Amino acid sequence: MDATRIKKEVGFAAADEYVKSGMRLGLGTGTTAIWCARRVGELMKQGKITNILAVPTSSQTELECQQLGIPLRSLNDPEINGELDLTIDGADEVDRDLCLTKGGGGALLIEKIVAYASKQFIVVIDTTKLVSHLGITFPIPIEVLRLARVPVARACEALGAKPEVRMAVKKMGPVITDNGNLLLDLSFSTPFDPKRMEQELSLIPGVLGNGIFSRVRPTVMVGHPDRRIETLR
Amino acid sequence: MDATRIKKEVGFAAADEYVKSGMRLGLGTGTTAIWCARRVGELMKQGKITNILAVPTSSQTELECQQLGIPLRSLNDPEINGELDLTIDGADEVDRDLCLTKGGGGALLIEKIVAYASKQFIVVIDTTKLVSHLGITFPIPIEVLRLARVPVARACEALGAKPEVRMAVKKMGPVITDNGNLLLDLSFSTPFDPKRMEQELSLIPGVLGNGIFSRVRPTVMVGHPDRRIETLR
Repeated sequence: MDATRIKKEVGFAAADEYVKSGMRLGLGTGTTAIWCARRVGELMKQGKITNILAVPTSSQTELECQQLGIPLRSLNDPEINGELDLTIDGADEVDRDLCLTKGGGGALLIEKIVAYASKQFIVVIDTTKLVSHLGITFPIPIEVLRLARVPVARACEALGAKPEVRMAVKKMGPVITDNGNLLLDLSFSTPFDPKRMEQELSLIPGVLGNGIFSRVRPTVMVGHPDRRIETLR
Repeated sequence: MDATRIKKEVGFAAADEYVKSGMRLGLGTGTTAIWCARRVGELMKQGKITNILAVPTSSQTELECQQLGIPLRSLNDPEINGELDLTIDGADEVDRDLCLTKGGGGALLIEKIVAYASKQFIVVIDTTKLVSHLGITFPIPIEVLRLARVPVARACEALGAKPEVRMAVKKMGPVITDNGNLLLDLSFSTPFDPKRMEQELSLIPGVLGNGIFSRVRPTVMVGHPDRRIETLR
């Protein structure tokens, strides 16, 4: 079975199992989570679920939801009031303690705001995302105020990271996020404690967000090549 | 002696005592720190100090330095390379352990980036800024991504704060910072541990910066009404 098919099956399975009528729903970004939004749109069209309000985690998901007819709200909307019943999103890496990394798509800041505002957080991945330690094969992204690039890079080096400014394609120079900031991708050569690293990165002035999610307890649905879907909690 | 005179004297004293030729210098914001920038400009004009490069902490200080002829650089400039010899800035409150609050002027994010990038950090205040506990009489400001206003306010309430969006004057609606974000002013009714609170606020997704400075060890120069200048370290 090809990679896209696995992603589609696990995205669909998450929507089928967890999304109920009346939910305030966070809908994530990326090649797996987008299938979940598509399935939610399908179920709504079929009348199988109703009364959904969704908060998208990126402009990718916003566009997709608008095409699918899923009603969108912001987290500040009185109907949402800063709290969601459920968020379903992908991940770049998931370790054995179910700590995870996000931000390959550049939306880490909003993705974390949405995930941490949710009573339940479902992560959909395929087996290639399971790792023993975060940040070794896939870098940890941080969102950085442009004028703090160099002092932030220095502070990250002091934590053992090799920082690199993420460069754009279809635009000269660096990637600029939906919020107008830079991304630094941090590579590590040795394992670190994710809880401690999330905290240390958060404390660096000029770091506006980081891609380590260690302070929510997700339910992780893993799509295997043999079509089995494994649930880790 | 009136308040402005005290602020001027302590700002001047800090420049006279700490600023040396060749320094890479952080210059702060506010009614006291601005006198320090003015004194640096004077000393440069008199030829008493030379080779100064300054990083301003706000557009207020930037404009002032340009009028004074003080050469400005960004923290990312190769001549600065993300590290300063000395920063002199004001504060809104200073407690007995020399933890402090900044951000009344709305520049907390850049002020913290500059202060934490400095080898030495001098704080200039008058006696009205000395308090036994931070955040009781003067609120703690945090800079917040606009779309995270409500979830951030909820998270702050869970930490015991009463959050209020800072409203603008000479513009309708809320204050928008130099970085395009909101400010929430957090009032507390009971004392808290500043180190722990700086950490807890930093960990809330959507909080881009907070006004508690507990992780630098400043030298605090206090201007007294009797013209005495006291140094706390």
